[in-house]
Amino acid sequence: MRVGELGEAGVIERVVRALPGAGDRLLLRGPGDDAAVLTPPGEGPLAWTADLLVEGTHFRRAWMPPSLLGHKSLAVNLSDLAAMGAEPVAFLLELGLPGDWPVDDLDAFCAGLGELARRSGVILAGGDTCASARLHVGISLLGRLPAGRGLGRDGARPGDQLAVTGPLGAAAAGLELLEAGWRLGAKGEACPPAAGDGGVPAAAAAAALRAHLAPEPELEAGRQLAGLARAGLDLSDGLARDLRRLCAASGCGAYLVGEQIPVDGAAAAVWQARGRDPLLGAVAGGEDYRLLVALPPEAVPAGVIPVGRVTRAGEGVRLDRGGAAEPLPTPFEHFPGP
Amino acid sequence: MRVGELGEAGVIERVVRALPGAGDRLLLRGPGDDAAVLTPPGEGPLAWTADLLVEGTHFRRAWMPPSLLGHKSLAVNLSDLAAMGAEPVAFLLELGLPGDWPVDDLDAFCAGLGELARRSGVILAGGDTCASARLHVGISLLGRLPAGRGLGRDGARPGDQLAVTGPLGAAAAGLELLEAGWRLGAKGEACPPAAGDGGVPAAAAAAALRAHLAPEPELEAGRQLAGLARAGLDLSDGLARDLRRLCAASGCGAYLVGEQIPVDGAAAAVWQARGRDPLLGAVAGGEDYRLLVALPPEAVPAGVIPVGRVTRAGEGVRLDRGGAAEPLPTPFEHFPGP
Repeated sequence: MRVGELGEAGVIERVVRALPGAGDRLLLRGPGDDAAVLTPPGEGPLAWTADLLVEGTHFRRAWMPPSLLGHKSLAVNLSDLAAMGAEPVAFLLELGLPGDWPVDDLDAFCAGLGELARRSGVILAGGDTCASARLHVGISLLGRLPAGRGLGRDGARPGDQLAVTGPLGAAAAGLELLEAGWRLGAKGEACPPAAGDGGVPAAAAAAALRAHLAPEPELEAGRQLAGLARAGLDLSDGLARDLRRLCAASGCGAYLVGEQIPVDGAAAAVWQARGRDPLLGAVAGGEDYRLLVALPPEAVPAGVIPVGRVTRAGEGVRLDRGGAAEPLPTPFEHFPGP
Repeated sequence: MRVGELGEAGVIERVVRALPGAGDRLLLRGPGDDAAVLTPPGEGPLAWTADLLVEGTHFRRAWMPPSLLGHKSLAVNLSDLAAMGAEPVAFLLELGLPGDWPVDDLDAFCAGLGELARRSGVILAGGDTCASARLHVGISLLGRLPAGRGLGRDGARPGDQLAVTGPLGAAAAGLELLEAGWRLGAKGEACPPAAGDGGVPAAAAAAALRAHLAPEPELEAGRQLAGLARAGLDLSDGLARDLRRLCAASGCGAYLVGEQIPVDGAAAAVWQARGRDPLLGAVAGGEDYRLLVALPPEAVPAGVIPVGRVTRAGEGVRLDRGGAAEPLPTPFEHFPGP
């Protein structure tokens, strides 16, 4: 059965039934009215974000299992709130669906989205569904801040420690494998292309594919770091690009120490087999959704990984690979620009 | 120049500069961080909606002037809040842009969106931009309710008066003209297709085209009616379909009186020239964005137009055309269903 045969009301009913929200005390009016009506989720400031995944731009249907598309479409939004130190509360779901999309895929999508929503304590408040030639999923996510303005990008100061919340590069290695024809199988196994695995170890490939297709937002780390760090953001477009953003917003430079940068083990194995430089891959590669923070050196908590320090603006953004500071590799851009 | 040459940061800078929001006291963090941070807009409940316009589904680039696309993408969201009696406050903008979209069109889009935003008192809080093969515009809009749960769909009772806030059918007539090759010119004039105007008067065509391309949300009427009506919604998909929704949510039937239904004058002129039934067009046609409300008969204020009454559920949803009650015409469906 295809979603086009369900009817619009049928699609909405199916989505609402599969996702948490119905009967929640916060929702004065939930899905099914012109707008959601909700009790303000606390007395402090609201944190609010929206992120869209579009077929052909962010994913291909051939390589993205629907349950992981559901997971990832919420995960990228949760990651934005994690980066502010905010607690996510409720979301709106905008679905653009090709009429020939299988209903089984819609159900799997909802299962993946619902699993992460329940685990993160967020509820569906409403949304919108329409027909669309290309599959797209937009989520708008509202959260609360315990206090203050949240962790922005603009507070870093020269002398601050730069740190990340986990290994880097796995998602980029996974994307590279997908583009080379690898797929993630139904049991989480890596399926090499017909041309062979090229020496890429299967376990490393599976971990890299999963990192790209199903990133985990760092909500707990964000809450902890919001009280300690001066600035932070989530690594959606890669350390090279996102660090430049943090530096631009803070009016600073940065000095990354190559040997401190935690290259993900699976990514390293993939890139070694493919003759690529793992460090540059980890620095340039996007979609890891780790957090990057700038902290006073005395405030660095256990569990975060130092990668360098904040410098004065005039010193630029550099990478030290054993003594010689290099410019950072060029990162991904949606619109490459001039 | 094309948006692909601007770079992602260039697109965002241009959008943020053109839209209201910068420096607003409500925004603790505005565009440019991982999430917007805002002071709760009042102590009462929040009203929250999201609506998406997708090229090929909701509009064609050939017939939608970019400034009106900007206007309409916000208008359809404002209309959702109008239908709740809510006051709109701030929005997130999600833009999916083909890299070859002219920067002049982006500027015109922002001008149209900005004009309506300023006039409605709403500010840009943040958003997201990505490359996309098809143009799409998603807006998530947050507002406040003066009190209570807002005007829902579920409160109508048998005996209530049904009323709308203005004439119906113009937007549907406009869509029909667009599909027949008519276009709205740069000076607001109607441009007939090469095959000729088929007797459609130019002024009526221009009004109908404009009604479809640039609907006006009924915020003021919504605020007034929220204190008077028992149930209401905005007519996004047409009286036939939206009335059925109101009846389903309220557990009621409805009896529409054909001769009371206010057929828009321009729509009537277009449909008469094209040999169509104006009343059926006005009842079935979508995107007028008028409000439909159910009120106690004694509470009907001046300015709204009675169109029938709420009946018991068992009586169904009927249209009286001079004595004989007919089933309502089949309305537009994104996914037609079984």
